[in-house]
Amino acid sequence: MTFSVGIFGASGYTGGELVRLLARHPQARIAFVTSERHAGRPIADVFPHLGAGPELICRPLTDLAASVECDVAFCALPHLTSMDAVPELLNRGTRVVDLSADFRLNDAEVFRTWYGEAHRAAGLLGEAVYGLPELGMRDSIRAARLVANPGCYPTSILLALAPLLKEKAIELESLVIDSKSGVSGAGRSAAQGSLFCEVSEGFRAYKAVGHRHTPEIEQELSRLAGAPVQVRFTPHLLPQSRGILSTCYVRPRYALTEAAWRDMLASHYRTEPFVQVLAAGHYPSTHQVQGSNHAVLAVALDERTGWLMVLSVIDNLVKGASGQAIQNMNLLMGVEESAGLEQLPLFP
Amino acid sequence: MTFSVGIFGASGYTGGELVRLLARHPQARIAFVTSERHAGRPIADVFPHLGAGPELICRPLTDLAASVECDVAFCALPHLTSMDAVPELLNRGTRVVDLSADFRLNDAEVFRTWYGEAHRAAGLLGEAVYGLPELGMRDSIRAARLVANPGCYPTSILLALAPLLKEKAIELESLVIDSKSGVSGAGRSAAQGSLFCEVSEGFRAYKAVGHRHTPEIEQELSRLAGAPVQVRFTPHLLPQSRGILSTCYVRPRYALTEAAWRDMLASHYRTEPFVQVLAAGHYPSTHQVQGSNHAVLAVALDERTGWLMVLSVIDNLVKGASGQAIQNMNLLMGVEESAGLEQLPLFP
Amino acid sequence: MTFSVGIFGASGYTGGELVRLLARHPQARIAFVTSERHAGRPIADVFPHLGAGPELICRPLTDLAASVECDVAFCALPHLTSMDAVPELLNRGTRVVDLSADFRLNDAEVFRTWYGEAHRAAGLLGEAVYGLPELGMRDSIRAARLVANPGCYPTSILLALAPLLKEKAIELESLVIDSKSGVSGAGRSAAQGSLFCEVSEGFRAYKAVGHRHTPEIEQELSRLAGAPVQVRFTPHLLPQSRGILSTCYVRPRYALTEAAWRDMLASHYRTEPFVQVLAAGHYPSTHQVQGSNHAVLAVALDERTGWLMVLSVIDNLVKGASGQAIQNMNLLMGVEESAGLEQLPLFP
Amino acid sequence: MTFSVGIFGASGYTGGELVRLLARHPQARIAFVTSERHAGRPIADVFPHLGAGPELICRPLTDLAASVECDVAFCALPHLTSMDAVPELLNRGTRVVDLSADFRLNDAEVFRTWYGEAHRAAGLLGEAVYGLPELGMRDSIRAARLVANPGCYPTSILLALAPLLKEKAIELESLVIDSKSGVSGAGRSAAQGSLFCEVSEGFRAYKAVGHRHTPEIEQELSRLAGAPVQVRFTPHLLPQSRGILSTCYVRPRYALTEAAWRDMLASHYRTEPFVQVLAAGHYPSTHQVQGSNHAVLAVALDERTGWLMVLSVIDNLVKGASGQAIQNMNLLMGVEESAGLEQLPLFP
Repeated sequence: MTFSVGIFGASGYTGGELVRLLARHPQARIAFVTSERHAGRPIADVFPHLGAGPELICRPLTDLAASVECDVAFCALPHLTSMDAVPELLNRGTRVVDLSADFRLNDAEVFRTWYGEAHRAAGLLGEAVYGLPELGMRDSIRAARLVANPGCYPTSILLALAPLLKEKAIELESLVIDSKSGVSGAGRSAAQGSLFCEVSEGFRAYKAVGHRHTPEIEQELSRLAGAPVQVRFTPHLLPQSRGILSTCYVRPRYALTEAAWRDMLASHYRTEPFVQVLAAGHYPSTHQVQGSNHAVLAVALDERTGWLMVLSVIDNLVKGASGQAIQNMNLLMGVEESAGLEQLPLFP
Repeated sequence: MTFSVGIFGASGYTGGELVRLLARHPQARIAFVTSERHAGRPIADVFPHLGAGPELICRPLTDLAASVECDVAFCALPHLTSMDAVPELLNRGTRVVDLSADFRLNDAEVFRTWYGEAHRAAGLLGEAVYGLPELGMRDSIRAARLVANPGCYPTSILLALAPLLKEKAIELESLVIDSKSGVSGAGRSAAQGSLFCEVSEGFRAYKAVGHRHTPEIEQELSRLAGAPVQVRFTPHLLPQSRGILSTCYVRPRYALTEAAWRDMLASHYRTEPFVQVLAAGHYPSTHQVQGSNHAVLAVALDERTGWLMVLSVIDNLVKGASGQAIQNMNLLMGVEESAGLEQLPLFP
Repeated sequence: MTFSVGIFGASGYTGGELVRLLARHPQARIAFVTSERHAGRPIADVFPHLGAGPELICRPLTDLAASVECDVAFCALPHLTSMDAVPELLNRGTRVVDLSADFRLNDAEVFRTWYGEAHRAAGLLGEAVYGLPELGMRDSIRAARLVANPGCYPTSILLALAPLLKEKAIELESLVIDSKSGVSGAGRSAAQGSLFCEVSEGFRAYKAVGHRHTPEIEQELSRLAGAPVQVRFTPHLLPQSRGILSTCYVRPRYALTEAAWRDMLASHYRTEPFVQVLAAGHYPSTHQVQGSNHAVLAVALDERTGWLMVLSVIDNLVKGASGQAIQNMNLLMGVEESAGLEQLPLFP
Repeated sequence: MTFSVGIFGASGYTGGELVRLLARHPQARIAFVTSERHAGRPIADVFPHLGAGPELICRPLTDLAASVECDVAFCALPHLTSMDAVPELLNRGTRVVDLSADFRLNDAEVFRTWYGEAHRAAGLLGEAVYGLPELGMRDSIRAARLVANPGCYPTSILLALAPLLKEKAIELESLVIDSKSGVSGAGRSAAQGSLFCEVSEGFRAYKAVGHRHTPEIEQELSRLAGAPVQVRFTPHLLPQSRGILSTCYVRPRYALTEAAWRDMLASHYRTEPFVQVLAAGHYPSTHQVQGSNHAVLAVALDERTGWLMVLSVIDNLVKGASGQAIQNMNLLMGVEESAGLEQLPLFP
């Protein structure tokens, strides 16, 4: 069985990553890619590293009506743009995996607060399925018309904390999450802050409070905990291209050994193909996920203070975006969940 | 007035940095440098970037007796080595700034716990002055024979938290400190973990709990607070050469505006030449201190949760090591505190 | 059809890369890996990024006799070590792809001159096939017992110049080749010169003249030209992990347009799956080959001086080492030449 | 004696570097800085690393008439813009060091060919002095009204080749110059090609032929040689912020030992404060000049082919731009040539 996919917004890093991965997917066939800015040009002009890949000419988005000859559409359009394209796609019967933030929040009011605009497709918020399969979403995803692909930070954090929240093992009032991301998370647009000279040797927090992924993180943590959860969340910008490491500091509600905490995570993810929990004394590096769809977790118990640290790494462009989108597509289409995602990480 | 200095252990990065800075100091003159491994070779063989600097031949440490023709000695020897060299230097009447960890802890028992060996010069622990001038240490430093130069992480953290602790403004039970350091902090010894290929694109925590700087941080925080303080402290390894950024998460004991918190820090450091507190909406980057003796601080109030973040950057090799050692030397010798440390940071 | 492979010397970067690629090869099955230093430990301890890959325990090399239960052996041992292991493997009937330099030179005297030791298996030099399939070697490789896998620099250079030499299009007296390599080419051994702090921001030539790849380059260029060729070859060390770019300056023997020179290369490689020749105005970046087995070439004619530049990039660990070794293995075993090597490059 | 300077175009990397260096100059006082884009904002908003430096508010360039209350003006304006500002400055009696390319070429026709526009101040081309003091320009610079500060590539190349050309020691027909530059050379404007993700791990030639520095290099080489010289010059883009390394391949006209070639360079530069010639077996790294005004040279003789390599490194922003501009200012104003330029390089 094969099926066809379309990629809306192929000229950003997540778009390029979708092409890279789908080009070698055993069942998916890329029917078309769109890019307003590069319409008419081969994708290899936009992404020279795809020169040995499939020959695709970027189509304009305005071609949308004509374009929709695909079974699944990936929307890698900017936030606030996707909400206009998605309803039209759904109307044509195309199933959609949306990589923007437009359909991740359940509540249109919360969306307006954090994104500064009213939601123009609020009617779909209730239907959109939050596409993090490892959080017990598989059946909903399989049945969905519209999957809201999670944000990169939320993916790294939710995977780290889900088992603890489900077990009601931690105090909900003192979650501190310190995240660090590679620069590719800032996208491919020319911006002074993403220049090599500004990033190299220039580590910094780029949003000490108020990052837009906060409500998404809290929505899903609250759902898992069955109670309202607030986080102190600070993202930082690493002088590297790929990878997110989230260091989560939590106060347990009861005392366990470090080994027991580790077992709690490990047993939670025992059957998951894309989640790895490290053995004692090992801590994850972003090297362990570069270019792959894996998440790697570790726990460390600070015996002096009784606090627990959970460390979590993902590749922000793969498990944090395009790889997870393909995992969701696999579920939607009923093929092997890891199809096209078997690559091991690249190191060094 | 000029005076002479000796550098014991000149072949590490902090040694090279001492030579770089002292070579342009208006009053200090480098009398000699030692390096066991490179004894007999010019310092420019060890550090080609010093090729345009002073001509110095590395002397062996065993030469110590003969070598001590200097007014101030910098010990940049490894931990557990310095404690053997320092007493001899003091006996000869040389004043010492020790850059190792050997004289930072007041309590020989705590030292044994964290360093795994009994202290062989425990009698000096009471006399050694912790050399962080901005923490109200100036008079003690001026009068000292032996200055224990603070660790790089402790410097970044103590400067961030001192004003809040002195004002008894924060809950002592919930300090979370997430620090990130450039690789130069790991030294110049050939170690697989510090190879370019292992570090680049490979961000990771290198010690989730139990880093040896913990007792130093807690000792000084407790002194400032007048009560025992424990920290949750996790250091990470950045893919860059220089710089430390510490993100400190604290729970205030009372509610103030962000501006008021900022003023608390700014007024505390108003007269300090090496500490800068950023205006609202600005967060520090390690670029702001590269090669300079400055610390740059910022605060951010998370109004949703009521927590406060203090962000702090230093150059680990300058304010975190060699620059601070020279600042201490200036105090010891009664010259201008910022002499030889006026360089602005290098960017990009 | 499946077959089994063994990897001798799996703990270096080329060894890790062999495991990464072979773990996803459709026909090859890794029977064992050896590492003296890590004997008894899982490969994922040595290379955490392989944690999601096959479970393999490193075996000691001294186990060699017992180990040889494989159809093809990859020798990723150090130079001067491989020559002792290879004859034994061949005696047992195992076919060998040797990644060291030990069997690349035809002439034992030349070997002694450049490597400073007599060759201990000189009798095999005549038999070993130089494994660069794109240079007309395919039939020899298919029939070989022992393939000498080319060096990384020679691969990048020979692919750039082969078409011009075969056409007798350039003056042989004025070849200037300026190459730049990522640090992974220096291996995974802890060496001060490969530390992050020594490499980052520290571009340099690491061998202005006399690099050991010189006789290999000249041997093969001479064979292609049918006349003795000497090169001026200077390798440099890039502050990046992977990739080689060689800039080759040649003086044509006759005048052609830039388009005609480009056609000469393009038509030479028309049917090659792993060689790409760029269109006018495009120059290769190492991004175009990261993690992939491709070589990307471009030409530029300096109309003012009449000289031609050929630029060539490969990933030093893939087409420059492990990928090419697998390509050779595929030829040896009669499977699809590109089996297991279809991955597109990773970018960014 | 003190004097005042103005900086036109302070918001680029060379502008920031002028402020950094001049802020610590013993005689110069920065009277004003201009930036169209940031007019009215403190320079520390534009360059946070200057937060501990002088308090300067960016003035608009249109303020020019009012602004000119300085003894020396630095023009760090874009090419083709400077030629409009400089004549006005000279008319007011201000001496000018121009960092653009506008006054480096003697011949207005050559300018038009390479820059695509007629020169609008061609009358000044004869008067402008090419400001490379080490090339025998000191007396002309001291007497000049207008100094054309050399380009970064030309500086690195001319210093490497000047002694050989003056001695008529090399064949003029076969000069091959392969240069590699840090990204800061591309400026601070937001451009996709300078993004961290595009540069890191993505080494490439950015102009295989036809770089605009070519006529400047050839003009000065021809002057030194007393005969027309053409070069094959290819610049590449390094994944690092600062530094240029030029590898120059030359064919000697007669045979000398490597030591003799080295002596030829060393004796040529014996009294130069900013040029260092390395001993046998040492090759320069860009680390040796980071943040400093030095050039470091080395020679290597390829005894097999008889060719000579000269390697040369500078910091493109210092000796390649702002530092050399200050060196020229010092000559103009009759103060110590190295005033304000004594800093040793920063490493690591």
